Amino acid sequence: MSTLSEQILGAPAGAYVDREVDIAFAHDGTGVLAREALREMGVERLPHPERLRLIFDHIVPANTGTTATLQAELRGYARSSGIELSDAGGGICHQVMSEGVVRPGMVVVGADSHTCTLGAFGAFATGVGATDMAAIWASGSTWFRVPETIAVNLTGRLSGAAEPKDVALACVAKLGMEGATYRALEFVGDGAAGISMDGRLTLCNMAVETGAKAGMFHADAATVRYLAEHGVTASPRAPKDCCYERTADIDLVDIVPLVAVPHRVDTVREAEEVAGTHLDQVFVGTCTNGRYEDLARFARIVRGKKVAVRTLVVPASRAVLARAIATGVLADIVDAGCMVAPPGCGPCLGAHAGVLGEGEVCLSTANRNFKNRMGVGGEIYLSSVATAAASAIAGVIAVPEVV
Amino acid sequence: MSTLSEQILGAPAGAYVDREVDIAFAHDGTGVLAREALREMGVERLPHPERLRLIFDHIVPANTGTTATLQAELRGYARSSGIELSDAGGGICHQVMSEGVVRPGMVVVGADSHTCTLGAFGAFATGVGATDMAAIWASGSTWFRVPETIAVNLTGRLSGAAEPKDVALACVAKLGMEGATYRALEFVGDGAAGISMDGRLTLCNMAVETGAKAGMFHADAATVRYLAEHGVTASPRAPKDCCYERTADIDLVDIVPLVAVPHRVDTVREAEEVAGTHLDQVFVGTCTNGRYEDLARFARIVRGKKVAVRTLVVPASRAVLARAIATGVLADIVDAGCMVAPPGCGPCLGAHAGVLGEGEVCLSTANRNFKNRMGVGGEIYLSSVATAAASAIAGVIAVPEVV
Repeated sequence: MSTLSEQILGAPAGAYVDREVDIAFAHDGTGVLAREALREMGVERLPHPERLRLIFDHIVPANTGTTATLQAELRGYARSSGIELSDAGGGICHQVMSEGVVRPGMVVVGADSHTCTLGAFGAFATGVGATDMAAIWASGSTWFRVPETIAVNLTGRLSGAAEPKDVALACVAKLGMEGATYRALEFVGDGAAGISMDGRLTLCNMAVETGAKAGMFHADAATVRYLAEHGVTASPRAPKDCCYERTADIDLVDIVPLVAVPHRVDTVREAEEVAGTHLDQVFVGTCTNGRYEDLARFARIVRGKKVAVRTLVVPASRAVLARAIATGVLADIVDAGCMVAPPGCGPCLGAHAGVLGEGEVCLSTANRNFKNRMGVGGEIYLSSVATAAASAIAGVIAVPEVV
Repeated sequence: MSTLSEQILGAPAGAYVDREVDIAFAHDGTGVLAREALREMGVERLPHPERLRLIFDHIVPANTGTTATLQAELRGYARSSGIELSDAGGGICHQVMSEGVVRPGMVVVGADSHTCTLGAFGAFATGVGATDMAAIWASGSTWFRVPETIAVNLTGRLSGAAEPKDVALACVAKLGMEGATYRALEFVGDGAAGISMDGRLTLCNMAVETGAKAGMFHADAATVRYLAEHGVTASPRAPKDCCYERTADIDLVDIVPLVAVPHRVDTVREAEEVAGTHLDQVFVGTCTNGRYEDLARFARIVRGKKVAVRTLVVPASRAVLARAIATGVLADIVDAGCMVAPPGCGPCLGAHAGVLGEGEVCLSTANRNFKNRMGVGGEIYLSSVATAAASAIAGVIAVPEVV
């Protein structure tokens, strides 16, 4: 009788363990720093390059000569050291890892705070700093303190225009931005089975916004089916309901479209309360909501209409983009007047594309609305894809209709 | 008996004339400067806002807070002054103007050097500085010195893998980068009729690379057909062969795939001579070669293959992108592993996306390969779309096969 974290890490909560990692990845930002740290450590040969991945997603395509030069050096290092590289345009690290790489029971570390996304597969997946990543490159393993676990008990089913992102916002609001620091969240209960894999990735993605080290679903029939579609064979693993530090209950029936208002993720209002808020930009994408299901939902709402505010859609990966093209989803999005940028993190980090001007307001499907994140003096509201779509058409924050 | 420029401007070569403009446009870069100059002039009301356009294409989406703030101010000015705005993602100014706005016989000025592109319709179209543009906003007219004209006499038909871009490079090589300073180029001869409208736009686009003020085709059946597809009724205007300062002959049969090597547009080699040159990036797009015909040609060559080098494709307008989606061209491009960025100028100006790192080499379908243009220390080769496609697949400069 033990939590998912305890099962995977093989020790009780509170214990310190050394563990081989199954997969360790870094992106173009942290990869450069990890490479630099590795050089300082004087490490020449990597013992397990087959466990490592580099994924260019943060600033793609390169925005300056300096960025391009750093990426060129890292590209060369990947080649010479045998690290598999997903180059610019392949997609966001967490999404690329979710397309048939991560499997239930794995230990996954990424040099990005949203690595917890991959707990959706019943893996232990967590973010590490770039220096820790360098040590993992050098050794193939790392240490963990096995986290205590908070069960997030989901009951009922979503209804109306609510979607998993609204559950994620409700969860962050309920626990608070420091409410689960160093804990793991396990999403359990009869409501969990009804959440799609894309929705589970959204929920686990935002676990870190409560301070959690990991967010996890138990691998079930839906997990097995999703992995099979990506060429991976896996078995379901039944949850053993026990040992939780505490349980937070969320009844999915109660969930309505929500919006996190500036500048905290846990300052959450019903969309209806902030309806009519002026917008200068709508952004649909990121490791939270840039998956196929998200783009398809957005397209269903904007189809045959025109956006009233500049709207940027960024698919989370090339596979997502290709599927959106094949199914007509992308045509609907472009015909509605949106810009579609190459797969990657896009405007989320405010570094290179879709940056906000002074005083500009953005409704975003991302996971963070911290002050100045998307541009100095810009304001960020966070919502679901349906709310973003309804708002793009209205030109102001709007409550999505039930479709 | 007079040249096209003389007919449209209504005076003989060498004369100075004041002319009302039919259309005057600026982009997000020059628009900001024109607005600032107008403010300094103390002009409050614009007499002819219906003649003016603002088109955001140079840095879209915005790369920094400063860019976003400047664009927001200019957007607000467009709204308050009644200037029609094509916002970020609509496309490159010259392309947007070519989609049913510019007609034969018009006087068109744009605050961008490649405004000569629009001479493809038998209009007099030329670039002006931002301060001149401000004066045009203030008055609705401007002065011109009627240029002398060099006839570029096209004979025969293109064969093999050669395309209009190769003719443009041959023309620049023949005349030299200062060979037609302040002249107009008139593309005439029995070979002109066989060049598609997309090809004519490519040829006129590069007229400025010879120093020419304008590059023009006579409106013929192809022009009329193209405009009809864009909802515009026009009549052909037969050329009156005369009065040219001189004639440069180009036999289309002789044209083979060509490449302009760093760092001059008129340093042109046969692609075969530079085949095997290392590449770090391939870029397909711009006001020279980002049209539908270009994307379709690129897709035909890369279909079912994978690019061996990072490749960025940027449609010249939303209409081009939408058509590429509808016809399956975009699917082929994405499946081949290319990045597709929102319609705009993209990496051409080295300002925000697809910038080259130190020592990186790019094969580009753009019109300029000046030192450091796409990034300090980067090298630019210019080619046709077919050569770019063959090279993207090969990973080095390659000669396109006849398809």
